[in-house]
Amino acid sequence: MSRTKVVDALRSTDFGKEMTVKGWVRSHRSSKAVDFIALNDGSTIKNIQIVVDPSTVDEELLKSITTGACIRATGKLVESQGKGQTCEIQASELELYGGCPSDYPMQKKGQSFEYMRQYAHLRLRTNTFGAVFRIRHNMAIAIHKYFHDHGFYYFNTPLITASDAEGAGSMFQVTTLDLDRVAKSGKVEYDKDFFGRKTNLTVSGQLEGELGATALGAIYTFGPTFRAENSNTPRHLAEFWMIEPEVAFIDKDELMDLEEDFIKYCVKWALDNCKDDLEFLNKMIDKTLIATLESVIKEDFVRLPYTEGIRILEQAVKDGHKFEFPVTGWGMDLSSEHERYLVEQHFKRPVIMTDYPSEIKAFYMKKNADGKTMQGTDVLFPRIGEIIGGSVREENYQKLLDEIEARGMDENNYKWYLDTRKFGSCPHAGFGLGFERLILFVTGMQNIRDVIPFPRTPKNAEF
Amino acid sequence: MSRTKVVDALRSTDFGKEMTVKGWVRSHRSSKAVDFIALNDGSTIKNIQIVVDPSTVDEELLKSITTGACIRATGKLVESQGKGQTCEIQASELELYGGCPSDYPMQKKGQSFEYMRQYAHLRLRTNTFGAVFRIRHNMAIAIHKYFHDHGFYYFNTPLITASDAEGAGSMFQVTTLDLDRVAKSGKVEYDKDFFGRKTNLTVSGQLEGELGATALGAIYTFGPTFRAENSNTPRHLAEFWMIEPEVAFIDKDELMDLEEDFIKYCVKWALDNCKDDLEFLNKMIDKTLIATLESVIKEDFVRLPYTEGIRILEQAVKDGHKFEFPVTGWGMDLSSEHERYLVEQHFKRPVIMTDYPSEIKAFYMKKNADGKTMQGTDVLFPRIGEIIGGSVREENYQKLLDEIEARGMDENNYKWYLDTRKFGSCPHAGFGLGFERLILFVTGMQNIRDVIPFPRTPKNAEF
Repeated sequence: MSRTKVVDALRSTDFGKEMTVKGWVRSHRSSKAVDFIALNDGSTIKNIQIVVDPSTVDEELLKSITTGACIRATGKLVESQGKGQTCEIQASELELYGGCPSDYPMQKKGQSFEYMRQYAHLRLRTNTFGAVFRIRHNMAIAIHKYFHDHGFYYFNTPLITASDAEGAGSMFQVTTLDLDRVAKSGKVEYDKDFFGRKTNLTVSGQLEGELGATALGAIYTFGPTFRAENSNTPRHLAEFWMIEPEVAFIDKDELMDLEEDFIKYCVKWALDNCKDDLEFLNKMIDKTLIATLESVIKEDFVRLPYTEGIRILEQAVKDGHKFEFPVTGWGMDLSSEHERYLVEQHFKRPVIMTDYPSEIKAFYMKKNADGKTMQGTDVLFPRIGEIIGGSVREENYQKLLDEIEARGMDENNYKWYLDTRKFGSCPHAGFGLGFERLILFVTGMQNIRDVIPFPRTPKNAEF
Repeated sequence: MSRTKVVDALRSTDFGKEMTVKGWVRSHRSSKAVDFIALNDGSTIKNIQIVVDPSTVDEELLKSITTGACIRATGKLVESQGKGQTCEIQASELELYGGCPSDYPMQKKGQSFEYMRQYAHLRLRTNTFGAVFRIRHNMAIAIHKYFHDHGFYYFNTPLITASDAEGAGSMFQVTTLDLDRVAKSGKVEYDKDFFGRKTNLTVSGQLEGELGATALGAIYTFGPTFRAENSNTPRHLAEFWMIEPEVAFIDKDELMDLEEDFIKYCVKWALDNCKDDLEFLNKMIDKTLIATLESVIKEDFVRLPYTEGIRILEQAVKDGHKFEFPVTGWGMDLSSEHERYLVEQHFKRPVIMTDYPSEIKAFYMKKNADGKTMQGTDVLFPRIGEIIGGSVREENYQKLLDEIEARGMDENNYKWYLDTRKFGSCPHAGFGLGFERLILFVTGMQNIRDVIPFPRTPKNAEF
């Protein structure tokens, strides 16, 4: 008999119908007259209750159905007597696929996230991580659907690259040279390396994304990105996923419209499509989660020039607000703490901060007529701080070249990038969204290592 | 005035309406009385014709509108007098965003693919590559939609890993060790490397994908994969994208149903959503393209045990068919040539080959009761050969451990993988699809370097 997923069984009102469900045992309570098995198959956070008359089942089989075991249960779907569930299955047949010995690391409830990180291969079977990764899936789908519906093309930029998008950032080197041989021979022969030169893992697909946008009109990347920063914080990963749309023919205002519309679409998708998982997380992880998500999609984002933002922060200091990182005035880079003050305390809604000083931003950003600020458009969110970093790109060949030279970068590394400004240059803009930052926001989780299945951090490449 | 995309302008019948289009000039023909500019913005393979009365436009401006230049044109949409187009724009205003000097490498028509590969950053602006990458986008969307609609979760497996999925395959090493220092000091200190150990780029996300499937029920990966093989062929890339679904509780027949249904869905999506681009490629690249795509979705795939396949190949040799690679009988690994013979000449439709000898396949595949074959299910396609590699996975802890030991692999590297069989093991199966192989099939392109924006191959990591 074909299997019914638990999510479908729970929705069914086809009482009296014979059904087969398969999944993992979340709990098993026994009494003389009746056994209750809570079964979950990953299709929903909810379990289906399997009711068993122990006199009809082999005693050894019933004993082996412990927490974590994998079974098949076949029986009639009936209306449930219990609270919080509409239906259950009266099992006429049970089959054990895989038992679960008592050293199962996910046996107990309420284990710490730190403990569970050691068992990232098994934590996926818990309620919390099931919810997080179903939501993560839904956010990926929302992103693809949004861009597809808006005429953007998904564009795969290279992971292995000889260029450095930011002119900064610690990178992982990629090589096929035998390091033991390098040590023995005392020389590094890049002509014998796979690519015949030094290569590394990309820190951003943006520059290549611009090549796509200035040909196909509008593209987005969605792929892994790497930073070899030795940061052991709840906000940093060495390997994370980025979404980087680039669009020809839009200006700063249209870019801000796109950023706001896009991220509201994602958050609304979660509210519309992940109700059960969000309710669970709202109860277990962050009691303000759903309210925060709802508030974000309701309010217009504040559009705030950097200069004005600094003024507000300086006023806050005058009014006695204590910041951990000092507010040093115009020209300073904002820390997450400052961003969150503006969002959470001052405006009480998301902020798009614009027109940053050029010096604290990347070389490719378009300067304003004042010569000292640029057309950046970063989106600041409650709890997260910067969730999107965007800007209009400099489309003038000479200005871009001047900036590359002024920063002491090697023009030869950017010849192909400069070509987009040399041949048929067009105004364009784009932004980057760290996927895990979005998942942190939408799930209410606190540590970025808990919103990616197998986190890569200093000294940790398990699984 | 807000911009109308060329794809929308061409569909419009709003004749007389004022419109603004923006894009790149494909050609510019001048005469005394009238100028014709063919404009493309990447939203469709088709150009919109801009009709200009030269007496109304600055002469210098008009001269600067050469092939490759980027412009804005505003004017009335009118019914077209020309062949093959329904409407055109009578320009009342032209603006040059970016001129295009005469050394533009994509100036000429009919340049070779090899030539264009040197300009991968500009080839995106040609008709052929526009078509290829719009189709590539559509295939990605079809894949996400298919799995989402069928209850699979998108699951991101790690790129940097300390494990080797296949127990084989050449890998790229990832390191933050300074190679010059390694050469100087004469020693490789992995305890000082970023992850405190030797790490590499993944050759497959499957093993980690199984961790997802045995928790969430059904997952799929869709991400980059790496092979450091020194293969300079039209079929190999060092960096390519893979789709790897894994499903709990399905058997071999259900796996084959999934493979067939999935790939037919993708091909049908292309036929339904990429008509203009396919017609262009059918005309310019492969005159049998659309017919081949249509035939694939119409016919049931043949389900052919390996042993029977070998018999057919042996019969073909007896009947005088000449193969480049010898048919050595049962136990041999099929080459692409053999696969294509079965598909293109013998059956004349796609084949799912099953039950291969265990020795020529990976350790994790479930063996049949005969002890010598395993439950593999590879899909063989016309022109491509193997497009999908699938199998039921061995779910029995002891059998899997025995196989790991028999192959001389280190059990300690697979402890987390074995845990899925130790704790609540379940029957499951999955497959892998090389994304670029699918794109080759759907576009009719011949070289895999022409279906990914920036190919990585030996000695080539440009852009």
